[in-house]
Amino acid sequence: MAGSSFGTIFKISTWGESHGKAIGVVIDGCPAGIPLDESVIQVYLDRRKPGQSRFTTARSEGDLVEILSGVFEGKTTGTPISLIVRNQDQRSRDYGQIASCYRPGHADYTFDAKYGFRDYRGGGRSSGRETIGRVAAGAVAAQALASMGITVTAYAKEIGGIRVSDERFDLSERDKNRLYMPDAEAAKEAEALLEKKMSETDSVGGIVECVVDGMPVGIGETVFEKLDANLAKAVMSIGAVKGFEIGDGFAAASSFGSKNNDAFWMKDGAVAKATNHAGGILGGMSDGSQIVLRAAFKPTPSIAKEQKTVTVDGEETDIVIKGRHDPIIVPRAVVVVEAMTALTVFDMLLVGMGSRMDLIKSFYRR
Amino acid sequence: MAGSSFGTIFKISTWGESHGKAIGVVIDGCPAGIPLDESVIQVYLDRRKPGQSRFTTARSEGDLVEILSGVFEGKTTGTPISLIVRNQDQRSRDYGQIASCYRPGHADYTFDAKYGFRDYRGGGRSSGRETIGRVAAGAVAAQALASMGITVTAYAKEIGGIRVSDERFDLSERDKNRLYMPDAEAAKEAEALLEKKMSETDSVGGIVECVVDGMPVGIGETVFEKLDANLAKAVMSIGAVKGFEIGDGFAAASSFGSKNNDAFWMKDGAVAKATNHAGGILGGMSDGSQIVLRAAFKPTPSIAKEQKTVTVDGEETDIVIKGRHDPIIVPRAVVVVEAMTALTVFDMLLVGMGSRMDLIKSFYRR
Amino acid sequence: MAGSSFGTIFKISTWGESHGKAIGVVIDGCPAGIPLDESVIQVYLDRRKPGQSRFTTARSEGDLVEILSGVFEGKTTGTPISLIVRNQDQRSRDYGQIASCYRPGHADYTFDAKYGFRDYRGGGRSSGRETIGRVAAGAVAAQALASMGITVTAYAKEIGGIRVSDERFDLSERDKNRLYMPDAEAAKEAEALLEKKMSETDSVGGIVECVVDGMPVGIGETVFEKLDANLAKAVMSIGAVKGFEIGDGFAAASSFGSKNNDAFWMKDGAVAKATNHAGGILGGMSDGSQIVLRAAFKPTPSIAKEQKTVTVDGEETDIVIKGRHDPIIVPRAVVVVEAMTALTVFDMLLVGMGSRMDLIKSFYRR
Amino acid sequence: MAGSSFGTIFKISTWGESHGKAIGVVIDGCPAGIPLDESVIQVYLDRRKPGQSRFTTARSEGDLVEILSGVFEGKTTGTPISLIVRNQDQRSRDYGQIASCYRPGHADYTFDAKYGFRDYRGGGRSSGRETIGRVAAGAVAAQALASMGITVTAYAKEIGGIRVSDERFDLSERDKNRLYMPDAEAAKEAEALLEKKMSETDSVGGIVECVVDGMPVGIGETVFEKLDANLAKAVMSIGAVKGFEIGDGFAAASSFGSKNNDAFWMKDGAVAKATNHAGGILGGMSDGSQIVLRAAFKPTPSIAKEQKTVTVDGEETDIVIKGRHDPIIVPRAVVVVEAMTALTVFDMLLVGMGSRMDLIKSFYRR
Repeated sequence: MAGSSFGTIFKISTWGESHGKAIGVVIDGCPAGIPLDESVIQVYLDRRKPGQSRFTTARSEGDLVEILSGVFEGKTTGTPISLIVRNQDQRSRDYGQIASCYRPGHADYTFDAKYGFRDYRGGGRSSGRETIGRVAAGAVAAQALASMGITVTAYAKEIGGIRVSDERFDLSERDKNRLYMPDAEAAKEAEALLEKKMSETDSVGGIVECVVDGMPVGIGETVFEKLDANLAKAVMSIGAVKGFEIGDGFAAASSFGSKNNDAFWMKDGAVAKATNHAGGILGGMSDGSQIVLRAAFKPTPSIAKEQKTVTVDGEETDIVIKGRHDPIIVPRAVVVVEAMTALTVFDMLLVGMGSRMDLIKSFYRR
Repeated sequence: MAGSSFGTIFKISTWGESHGKAIGVVIDGCPAGIPLDESVIQVYLDRRKPGQSRFTTARSEGDLVEILSGVFEGKTTGTPISLIVRNQDQRSRDYGQIASCYRPGHADYTFDAKYGFRDYRGGGRSSGRETIGRVAAGAVAAQALASMGITVTAYAKEIGGIRVSDERFDLSERDKNRLYMPDAEAAKEAEALLEKKMSETDSVGGIVECVVDGMPVGIGETVFEKLDANLAKAVMSIGAVKGFEIGDGFAAASSFGSKNNDAFWMKDGAVAKATNHAGGILGGMSDGSQIVLRAAFKPTPSIAKEQKTVTVDGEETDIVIKGRHDPIIVPRAVVVVEAMTALTVFDMLLVGMGSRMDLIKSFYRR
Repeated sequence: MAGSSFGTIFKISTWGESHGKAIGVVIDGCPAGIPLDESVIQVYLDRRKPGQSRFTTARSEGDLVEILSGVFEGKTTGTPISLIVRNQDQRSRDYGQIASCYRPGHADYTFDAKYGFRDYRGGGRSSGRETIGRVAAGAVAAQALASMGITVTAYAKEIGGIRVSDERFDLSERDKNRLYMPDAEAAKEAEALLEKKMSETDSVGGIVECVVDGMPVGIGETVFEKLDANLAKAVMSIGAVKGFEIGDGFAAASSFGSKNNDAFWMKDGAVAKATNHAGGILGGMSDGSQIVLRAAFKPTPSIAKEQKTVTVDGEETDIVIKGRHDPIIVPRAVVVVEAMTALTVFDMLLVGMGSRMDLIKSFYRR
Repeated sequence: MAGSSFGTIFKISTWGESHGKAIGVVIDGCPAGIPLDESVIQVYLDRRKPGQSRFTTARSEGDLVEILSGVFEGKTTGTPISLIVRNQDQRSRDYGQIASCYRPGHADYTFDAKYGFRDYRGGGRSSGRETIGRVAAGAVAAQALASMGITVTAYAKEIGGIRVSDERFDLSERDKNRLYMPDAEAAKEAEALLEKKMSETDSVGGIVECVVDGMPVGIGETVFEKLDANLAKAVMSIGAVKGFEIGDGFAAASSFGSKNNDAFWMKDGAVAKATNHAGGILGGMSDGSQIVLRAAFKPTPSIAKEQKTVTVDGEETDIVIKGRHDPIIVPRAVVVVEAMTALTVFDMLLVGMGSRMDLIKSFYRR
């Protein structure tokens, strides 16, 4: 099945393996007239680039993006935008053992079972490098949203159980530490934990939070295509994500109706909510409040500790995974969550334009 | 947008409002040759039916399903299956106030903003009755899966913070209490809490857990169409769901790689996992273990307590929601989670048949 | 596969067999605010109803449509519209022989081969009654288009080789004869031919032409989703259609560039074309001229003449098809072509709203 | 809208403008295990390459394809296949005038109207070079089909009104003349006509016929997703196609039922048809006979003759189109029709695997 495509009107198709020639994405259905050049996209790619700190893999890739089509005289033309990033530093030799046995926590076994064989060099399509296409396309969606006054912002909310404090929350701190935590103190604590776990050849997980500001009311559809349902799919499709929540999420399950309901009131002449337990979505449609979502990332499965596993021939064996791996996925995943959120929100804005006959008529009567 | 359709090969379209003439679903793409009659579907519908206990709305609907097409001589024919349930007990008068103001925690406001007006009788498409179509179609998917040895089972895992104990877990208990909890003691405790909250005109939330047994390995696609991503969308599209997790879910975020990775071993001559933190899915594909997922439901938003809100004309006001409402959504939602899981799994089984050229050739060489 | 669904934003799913309980359609994605009641749809259904003349099957069905959902206080609500027509006059006994052998020119053989068995009562989903759902949904699309000043009009262009003359063409004649030919003289001639062929227990084919007036410029997408490509699929999906053309169609293949190109000029201050060989579409997008398309219908395959065929058990045999069958499909198919054209055009109007960033911004800044 | 994507399971997204950096396609959903390297694809691309004869544009492009992903050790891996062809000979200066006025018969005007501006260098996405992506992807589909014993073969059936004679038809002649006509005599005649029309600075149209041999029975779905409906869309989406027919096509419209019906008989123990007026498809499903389809191509719109048109500013003017243009599209379009047919047939083979529950069960019980 066409599993590498995402979106209905603003549709992307990503391609490329971690150890192939290149990685890329085609955006089909991007509106014409969005100012775009490589620099807009590169800012996003640099945030997921390896080698940013000692907590990210030492693999050094420039990850420079090239626009191959769909942009003319600095603006999108409405035709497909093809973006490509060449793979440079591939060191395939590091990954030899993957060919013969299944790494715990990885897709090696399921991949072999599904396709009959696999490109065993570095995880192929299940590698984290697959997200390059998502981030590049997400940067274009974010650029479009920004022009409408809609911003998408993600950050590390929790790392190895260490959570950003509500009191100390300061978004301007996010880009000052390598963990992308908006809380200098939590970041320092988390870094210490990471040092310790690295010395133990272990890895940790964490939580990314993402907020969307400036949403119009009524984006999302009422039944299966709820905005939160699509955000859940988008975010859960990122490699290591094991959980998703919107607003109060799992905490709502132990709350009460009288506390969890957000009262409506009037603010600046518009309907608003006094609280935001709902996370900005009611009945699957944006309610004009800030959208708040969270994704739970499991610890990096590639660890240098010895683990039990089996070979492709069904022999039990031990494995020690060599190579360069992040002890924590979260910092580099922050921009991936942002990208998937932007892609989803922008696509739903486009598909939702046909909701009212009076507005359709005005649109075409222009 | 076509928001009431779900699935790629096994595609369903649900329709009907809570206070319209009827509710139904069309299943387009159901394989031929599945034994089917109304009784197979009715069993599922009866599990979500109102009026089962004092914890569910007193609205008494027979909710009897009729098959209008797609079945001939007791078997599906491969053509669209149209299922209909007539609405009987509509008492529109209970819902008068909804027309003039926005209920907190409901879709009234977003619906009005999106479509310009709405069918204010009982929530329209945002009513819980919308799930009748999901459950009816899910029963057909579950019937097909069962014939392949795949079973989908959901239950209430937690209600108002009271959780099923791992030690006392007993699936046979599930259908003996009206809360669908597989733990008699927890059920008793939860019932007491519900009594208390009802007397306070309040409501509670909870968690539904769903497991899938008998999965073949390799179902799900590698990037955006991961099995867990599609399950997330399916489950998050249910009205009051605010969170979703697979396997250890959010707990994985504070775990470590050495603990969270599931070691592989050989069991009965096949590759298996020693533990199942992953919840049966690796790299977006089923790994042959039990699939385990959880959904967090918010407390019923309709409560008889006085709440602050605004009118459709932008006046601040108070609202007391009358009518018959469940103090807890979870018991009746158990079968809805089961239905959405079955629909997703069966559809992905069908779309995944084209993954390997050798198998495609054998299939057509038959 | 979900073969009974059509459209991207305005999506329909039809269901029902010729001899089942009912026939219907669900429209998912219809904009809110379109005035709608049963009478709007009934006008269209009456045009395809059997028993209108001696050239159409004597099967007498009221074919009365009922709206089950999606309309409130006389307007569409934006939620799925469920339309149902009960089957009344089913006389299954007429069709006994179909169960045991394959009718030439019908789908009996391919249906059996695909699904392993079939509902042999009257053709099932391959019956002409399947088009009831298309026409009912098409009436809704046409109603929406009309409110935008776009009209879709079809008529019989040719019957049994007898063609409407360009000189005598008079649309007001169309509804005065039972063949829906906009040329009284051609209609009379065609009726005589039909009498003759009926007496010979034979059937004839013909051509339907359909025009769309009032199209905005730029509807349709540039590569695979060209407006003409989608119209071709829509029209070719009608049972007996064997050919499709747009503008000059096949005649263009023997024309020359200097003659076939339509020169541009200015008319009433707007860009216009001096001729319309292109049929209103350039590069897959509407050019503002009248859209002109034609569909070639084969002769009714059900004839009372003895034909050679084989039984389901592979025995050669003769078949004489009894029952009530139109000697010509075209008159009743006119409204079906109109419906499929309206569905396609309205859906593409909706999907095309996201083509320009400046217009998207204005739309949401309203 | 995502207009450059095609297919449901075997899905392609093409990209690239005639005067951009490159042209390419991503195939998402290609089964694993198909032997593939650049040479397989290059054979197809060479058949559409410019500069093959004096009847094709002198633009000299190597049109060499590079596989960037999805192939490992000589076989497809099941992951997206990214194919790229660099543009080399771009001579933008030839196309200056297109920027300021609308070429008759081209998409310049509709493109401007739709997107607000356009890449005026050589037609952008509406250029014939857009078909490179189609042909490259079609070669992969054809390779897969060939391994199943299914072959797709197209040829020029008619050029400038000169038709291949049934008696002289000889497929082996097709690749011996530059017009790809399977009839040496007709080819010679057509070449003479082309010489004459070129000297008159005019162009001609023609018809491509395509046949599919080796089809299993039952491919295609019964209502909207008929095999012929999808073939119609696929073929009509090729730039200059104005008409499509299957089997007898438009000729069927003036035939009679007794003549047009194909009698069934038994042949080599299998159900077969004595004739093939239907063109291999009954009720939208393949019937096991040869599939026969035809596409009508209009004459090349780019001619050096002076034509009337308007400027982008709405001034009437004359235009003489310079640059290198084929006087006839048909010869190079033959392989494009073949590609679109192969893409459609292979995709429908994949989506149709879920039609019968018994076969689904056997498939997964393997």
